[in-house]
Amino acid sequence: MQTKNPLGRTRWAIADGYIPGWSHGPAPEMISHDAICILNTADEEARIELTIYFSDRDPAGPYRVTVPPQRTSHIRFNELKDPEPISPATDFSCLIESSVPIVVQHTRLDSRQAENALISTIAYSEA
Amino acid sequence: MQTKNPLGRTRWAIADGYIPGWSHGPAPEMISHDAICILNTADEEARIELTIYFSDRDPAGPYRVTVPPQRTSHIRFNELKDPEPISPATDFSCLIESSVPIVVQHTRLDSRQAENALISTIAYSEA
Amino acid sequence: MQTKNPLGRTRWAIADGYIPGWSHGPAPEMISHDAICILNTADEEARIELTIYFSDRDPAGPYRVTVPPQRTSHIRFNELKDPEPISPATDFSCLIESSVPIVVQHTRLDSRQAENALISTIAYSEA
Amino acid sequence: MQTKNPLGRTRWAIADGYIPGWSHGPAPEMISHDAICILNTADEEARIELTIYFSDRDPAGPYRVTVPPQRTSHIRFNELKDPEPISPATDFSCLIESSVPIVVQHTRLDSRQAENALISTIAYSEA
Repeated sequence: MQTKNPLGRTRWAIADGYIPGWSHGPAPEMISHDAICILNTADEEARIELTIYFSDRDPAGPYRVTVPPQRTSHIRFNELKDPEPISPATDFSCLIESSVPIVVQHTRLDSRQAENALISTIAYSEA
Repeated sequence: MQTKNPLGRTRWAIADGYIPGWSHGPAPEMISHDAICILNTADEEARIELTIYFSDRDPAGPYRVTVPPQRTSHIRFNELKDPEPISPATDFSCLIESSVPIVVQHTRLDSRQAENALISTIAYSEA
Repeated sequence: MQTKNPLGRTRWAIADGYIPGWSHGPAPEMISHDAICILNTADEEARIELTIYFSDRDPAGPYRVTVPPQRTSHIRFNELKDPEPISPATDFSCLIESSVPIVVQHTRLDSRQAENALISTIAYSEA
Repeated sequence: MQTKNPLGRTRWAIADGYIPGWSHGPAPEMISHDAICILNTADEEARIELTIYFSDRDPAGPYRVTVPPQRTSHIRFNELKDPEPISPATDFSCLIESSVPIVVQHTRLDSRQAENALISTIAYSEA
């Protein structure tokens, strides 16, 4: 049961992007955030481009991130700065395109109220 | 890594539709809602028809929505009015059919109790 | 964009079945439950068999349910009685086999603490 | 509608692994945990290898688990010890490879705040 081929696909998307507008609780764990978690099981670096789509303006990007071979990377949209930060309390979607197969999971922590709420889903992918 | 083809599929469905019957907290963020988030990466407008299925009556619809090219749209079921509003506290499902490939994610915010609860999942799709 | 073919697949499964062992809040909305929501877009009744798998005993079932044509049905595992009820606070999985294509979503409401928590995911399917 | 073939796939992954760093509420139900729930509908034992990927070090594993024929197993990452425990409050991903087809669902209970939060999603799979 050796891993022969890297697992995953090269094109992914999430449709429900949203950084909650405020937070309760201790930082950094309880800061409201929206994130994509990326697994790269390949033997080479994943060069990844993110494109952010909005409801009322042209897309932003590409945002360039890399995930080293045999590593995971949990990326908070809150922390993307280049080419521009993503405003909180704003609807967006995200297209993820990678140079090698990856697996992408979308997770949000919403601590706008006193107790946190969580969502997570494997993103949509195409071969 | 240019986006050559629009990502997604043209037929989607969610099975667990439900608008919670009451809310706690500040509007509009904390109003209980059930929503579909739609990403259109295509270069043309997505003309979309929603059909709402119930447990005890014939389906309602089509509800017609459009998503401009290269845009996202987060649509609350609470806000659909034509051909008829969807009652809160009622089980439903939703079929989504689009003129171009799209990506659909289903998200609910339930603030019936003092602290909000969230769900989200990529919807079911077919080519 | 007429719906020509029923959407979905005939074999589905959820792996994380669990009825929380206690509840807080008003019935029936806030009673802890684990449920499958089934959409039948076909023009004929869906005859469905559920098989429940456990960690330490042979499977139970089949549990037989039907979903009328063009209808949705949200079924709480809590309410299945024949051939036997499913114990709360017990790990299980569920295989869903249908006579026509359906779409299945798995949702749990957990009100063991004062504020409810929710999960939902489209189930796993095969053609 | 007899189950002829085992349902599922042999290679699965979750990208967002995370054991919350602390808990509130009664044990064992309300202990924060991250888990994979595995359904084996086959007539033979599933021999499964888990590989854990990190952001800043080489992968750990394989962790070997088995699921008997026609059984489910809900495995908390918290409880894996061999070849090494997985640290809480650490980002990870998990590759799951099985000798027979299985279905995998990823669930987390986060009780770091007074009320618990939950996530769940069917994992990503390949044939």
